[in-house]
Amino acid sequence: MTSAAFDVLGIGNAIVDVLTKADDAFLSQHGLVKGSMMLIDEARADTLYAAMAPGVEISGGSCGNTMAGVASFGGKGAYIGKVRDDQLGAVFGHDLRATGVSFETASATTGPATARCLILVTPDAQRTMNTYLGACTGLGPNDIDTARVGAAQVTYVEGYLWDAPAAKQAVLKAFDADHAAGRKVSITLSDSFCVHRYRDEFRDLVRNKVDILFGNEAEIKALYEVETFEQALEAVRKDAKIAALTRSEKGSVVVKGSETYEVPAAPVAKVVDTTGAGDLYAAGFLFGFTHGKPLAECARLGGIAAAEVISHVGARPEKALSGLV
Amino acid sequence: MTSAAFDVLGIGNAIVDVLTKADDAFLSQHGLVKGSMMLIDEARADTLYAAMAPGVEISGGSCGNTMAGVASFGGKGAYIGKVRDDQLGAVFGHDLRATGVSFETASATTGPATARCLILVTPDAQRTMNTYLGACTGLGPNDIDTARVGAAQVTYVEGYLWDAPAAKQAVLKAFDADHAAGRKVSITLSDSFCVHRYRDEFRDLVRNKVDILFGNEAEIKALYEVETFEQALEAVRKDAKIAALTRSEKGSVVVKGSETYEVPAAPVAKVVDTTGAGDLYAAGFLFGFTHGKPLAECARLGGIAAAEVISHVGARPEKALSGLV
Repeated sequence: MTSAAFDVLGIGNAIVDVLTKADDAFLSQHGLVKGSMMLIDEARADTLYAAMAPGVEISGGSCGNTMAGVASFGGKGAYIGKVRDDQLGAVFGHDLRATGVSFETASATTGPATARCLILVTPDAQRTMNTYLGACTGLGPNDIDTARVGAAQVTYVEGYLWDAPAAKQAVLKAFDADHAAGRKVSITLSDSFCVHRYRDEFRDLVRNKVDILFGNEAEIKALYEVETFEQALEAVRKDAKIAALTRSEKGSVVVKGSETYEVPAAPVAKVVDTTGAGDLYAAGFLFGFTHGKPLAECARLGGIAAAEVISHVGARPEKALSGLV
Repeated sequence: MTSAAFDVLGIGNAIVDVLTKADDAFLSQHGLVKGSMMLIDEARADTLYAAMAPGVEISGGSCGNTMAGVASFGGKGAYIGKVRDDQLGAVFGHDLRATGVSFETASATTGPATARCLILVTPDAQRTMNTYLGACTGLGPNDIDTARVGAAQVTYVEGYLWDAPAAKQAVLKAFDADHAAGRKVSITLSDSFCVHRYRDEFRDLVRNKVDILFGNEAEIKALYEVETFEQALEAVRKDAKIAALTRSEKGSVVVKGSETYEVPAAPVAKVVDTTGAGDLYAAGFLFGFTHGKPLAECARLGGIAAAEVISHVGARPEKALSGLV
């Protein structure tokens, strides 16, 4: 195995977030489930957007946020994801490259527009996400440069990609290239509703392909269809090589075989917007992992990154994470 | 004169802001003058954008910010400005309408893209603006519905519009319609460099057409080519019917003939980003003016709105201004 050109290569849905404030009444009026990610079509996106308060556009996408976080720690990152050659696609590409992440996936020149996620932030700092996948549905195996993938220590992907069938094929191609090159692969479960949609496939992946699994408490319980976090922990311990599980203010738990590391959450003065907490936890963890840190330290770095991102609006770090450790 | 359908109708350059942080070294490296607004062409916009850190897109435009402020006070506003039928144009329209402002100007279907202003916020909270006017250059007299203009108590325009020759003609058409309908017209000097570009025309307007003049200390000194604020005050007193002049932390001064009102600035815990301070001062002032308030109270409302907008990043109010008075 040669030395890696990248620490982490991410594959994800390339999305521009449209963030706005909303109250609980707005959520019920529009049939939205607080804290979840719902897929919407273009017509629904237009209707919902028309009803929303003025917004702010910020590059997002779960894995894009993670890669921005890896770069903010000083890690070498690359990203694969599909935008359209439109204004929001240019914004997405600019913002990711400006963090220092290598992003060379060809933009779509036809078909749907760059993906948008309409994010409603309620006064309790919860975010409710409504994603129009648009151009993301065009990501496929042809976008996977196996040499590039094999040049990264870890390839990290979103469970959300399973919502775009060709993207799933792209991920499986990347995983094969990784393992052929002696690299590691990692996945986040993304969202409990996403787990319900693809439970069998995700369980199979965790058991047979994935080296590092990320998920939060709701997601891991959904994966194993159990009632308690403890039950989920025992189940995932048997399946996964390494699992890093987040529990909001309770911090995170990392399991590897019989080893268990419980790491408290980093302190936050005021939680402003929880968008990106899990994404940034993965960033810190993977930065640590690809720099030879022990698992408990990886989890601590994840917690620091998550704490930074929930202390302000938006899902990417505002401060250089390298300065916080 | 019939009762007015709108309190304020604004005419301005319809711009989406791209906000990012930068240090003084970045400004010098790119030949930028801190605190000023510079017009740039598309190639320069692309070069500068490529060099910038990740940004946040927020609807802006000086007059658009003002109109959002008028609406936030509970005033009835309308806006005339030109975007392209592209993604950023849709963002601009959505955000303005979502504040409650009526915006019916037809989008351009050909020609340059929706205008962007690349705003660099330095650690001292100053903003340095680089504007690619794009579709704004397509605003012309045909976009002025004289009945709509005549239905507003006050028409408020940006001096910045003089940078687009057809837009200037649109403004003059609107001013004539206003006066024919017995309404008032108002202008902001916008920027001291803008004043240098159009000094003679602005002086003529102030003397002969404008009912309420807005400007800051640097702009009013530039208008009269004098060294001190006191000299400028005496000059504008002779020319303008009403002038409302802002002086940052020193508050504002309103003159009307021999009357002078000095109003202190509203307190601000921490100045985060001065973008939009003048725009929001005008919003508060015009809301007060169109609701029959005395001039000193108009200035106080302007100060409250300015204080809100400089306490956070972005040039439009985050809190409902109606709740702050």
